[in-house]
Amino acid sequence: MHILITGASGMIGRKLTAALVAKGSLQDQPITGLTLVDITAPVLPDGVPGAALAADLSDAAAAPALIDARPDVIFHLAAIVSGEAEADLHKGYAVNLHGTLALCDAITRQEDYRPRFVFASSIAVFGAPLPDVIPDDQPTLPLTSYGTQKAMGEMLISDLSRRGALDGIALRLPTICIRPGKPNAAASGFYSSILREPLVGDPAVLPVPDTTRHWFASPRAAVGFLIHAAEMDLTPLGQNRALSLPGVDATVGDEIAALERIAGPKAVALIRREPDATIAKIVAGWPQAFDPARARALGFEAEPDMDAIIRAHIEDELDGRIPVAD
Amino acid sequence: MHILITGASGMIGRKLTAALVAKGSLQDQPITGLTLVDITAPVLPDGVPGAALAADLSDAAAAPALIDARPDVIFHLAAIVSGEAEADLHKGYAVNLHGTLALCDAITRQEDYRPRFVFASSIAVFGAPLPDVIPDDQPTLPLTSYGTQKAMGEMLISDLSRRGALDGIALRLPTICIRPGKPNAAASGFYSSILREPLVGDPAVLPVPDTTRHWFASPRAAVGFLIHAAEMDLTPLGQNRALSLPGVDATVGDEIAALERIAGPKAVALIRREPDATIAKIVAGWPQAFDPARARALGFEAEPDMDAIIRAHIEDELDGRIPVAD
Repeated sequence: MHILITGASGMIGRKLTAALVAKGSLQDQPITGLTLVDITAPVLPDGVPGAALAADLSDAAAAPALIDARPDVIFHLAAIVSGEAEADLHKGYAVNLHGTLALCDAITRQEDYRPRFVFASSIAVFGAPLPDVIPDDQPTLPLTSYGTQKAMGEMLISDLSRRGALDGIALRLPTICIRPGKPNAAASGFYSSILREPLVGDPAVLPVPDTTRHWFASPRAAVGFLIHAAEMDLTPLGQNRALSLPGVDATVGDEIAALERIAGPKAVALIRREPDATIAKIVAGWPQAFDPARARALGFEAEPDMDAIIRAHIEDELDGRIPVAD
Repeated sequence: MHILITGASGMIGRKLTAALVAKGSLQDQPITGLTLVDITAPVLPDGVPGAALAADLSDAAAAPALIDARPDVIFHLAAIVSGEAEADLHKGYAVNLHGTLALCDAITRQEDYRPRFVFASSIAVFGAPLPDVIPDDQPTLPLTSYGTQKAMGEMLISDLSRRGALDGIALRLPTICIRPGKPNAAASGFYSSILREPLVGDPAVLPVPDTTRHWFASPRAAVGFLIHAAEMDLTPLGQNRALSLPGVDATVGDEIAALERIAGPKAVALIRREPDATIAKIVAGWPQAFDPARARALGFEAEPDMDAIIRAHIEDELDGRIPVAD
């Protein structure tokens, strides 16, 4: 079992790598090779057979070099994030669209080769106007270049799967929460930071009303989705290989209530409300909740509620401790 | 007014060129330049200022060379047809997707340039299961590589229009009927040939049941759609620049009844029923009818019925004569 992970230096890429190494096998076959690639060279865990490569997927030579080794499973996570893809038109298309096209093109040029291809798509393929709860047959009408590039990738993967050129699936990941690490400039950053910072005793800024509703999964759930997608039989998906995933439907108020239950009022007091009309407007166009019936029937599982999302973060990032409550 | 037409050697490209030359202006501005391009050099009508070029849009150098002249309006009709795009995976993606991407990329690299971009999409962006009458918000789930490539082009054009990089519209043309010329190998060919051949006294083969329903517009209506799309204000389209177009919803039986009304029973007797299970299966996955409310509200108009489609063919292709009735 040879596995290729693009975007392996990213947060999900690193967690997926660690989970695969811990598991030791995929599709009941021992992992004999792990190729990790990103724009900056990833770190290959000690004792794991494989390679860690720095490569730019928008470089035409990169994809054939990766695919010539004929990995059995490809996790294609590499992407320019939403904000940057909007700010830099050409860079976003180069990586998010042409990078995916180049990988798929290299696959179709191999003989007798049909790898499992797990593509990280996004709920950004949907844009307003949207129903409060988005059904599985909602049309993809993105309102960002990032969402457009992901939606185009979904269509490519459905077409090449239908043709038998690869065995692909596109996972529309919920917004990841709690995203570990430092606060960043992403418009969605507050969803994580209003939990992450108070848990360790630091202040956090909330720029939107408590009634703002969104769709979340933990990093742990995201890794679980990716591994499940790599192992399951994809035949039941039929011709449409893109899947909206389970998540937790929560308002900002629900997030804060869960934080209070788990870490107490001292944590909640660290959240400072600073309304920001620009962020509120961006967020208003985002999906609020999904009815991901297809994914649930196919065995994809997220956390049951925001409390479980916070507990996963405490276990995975804080060694089981809650510093603000110490 | 400088106009660029890709795919200008094709049937619609030639008719569009003739219509523009006859009209002499576009958007109320005199046509001062007409650049025609196709894989084989098109014919530039006598006395028209411009150029006729042979170019392969899948060649990376082709698009910048065309766009450097900064045409005001671009009709992007060039495409590998459905059957060939399915038979030759790489050729279909090279022309239908990468050709469109390259044209758009060249446009976005110009400074202070926002051309009108009219893209010939197709009802092949939809695939079974479909409702009997397809609404404007039907999700695009193509079942062919051709449909996939067109659907990806639609998304690109909506995104670049939203960003102000071009002012684009994607027209999902109905099946063109009566397509002039010789019978060809397309699965849809019989829709035209059961009318075209009998009108001139030649036999035609009908491979599907009379109850088979589909969505049609004449070549004349298609040219009208393209010119209307080049002249209208596109602002009312909002973020979704792809449009299903008006057409005639007709069964094969309706076609035959219209033929009998116009050309008599002698014409109908030339249709020979030879059921073909393969063609019937392909056709069963195609759209039957649309409710193109958005396009109608925006002033797009097709023929009222199959009789009008046949009459348009007699006027435009047969000099007003009906040879079988002579």
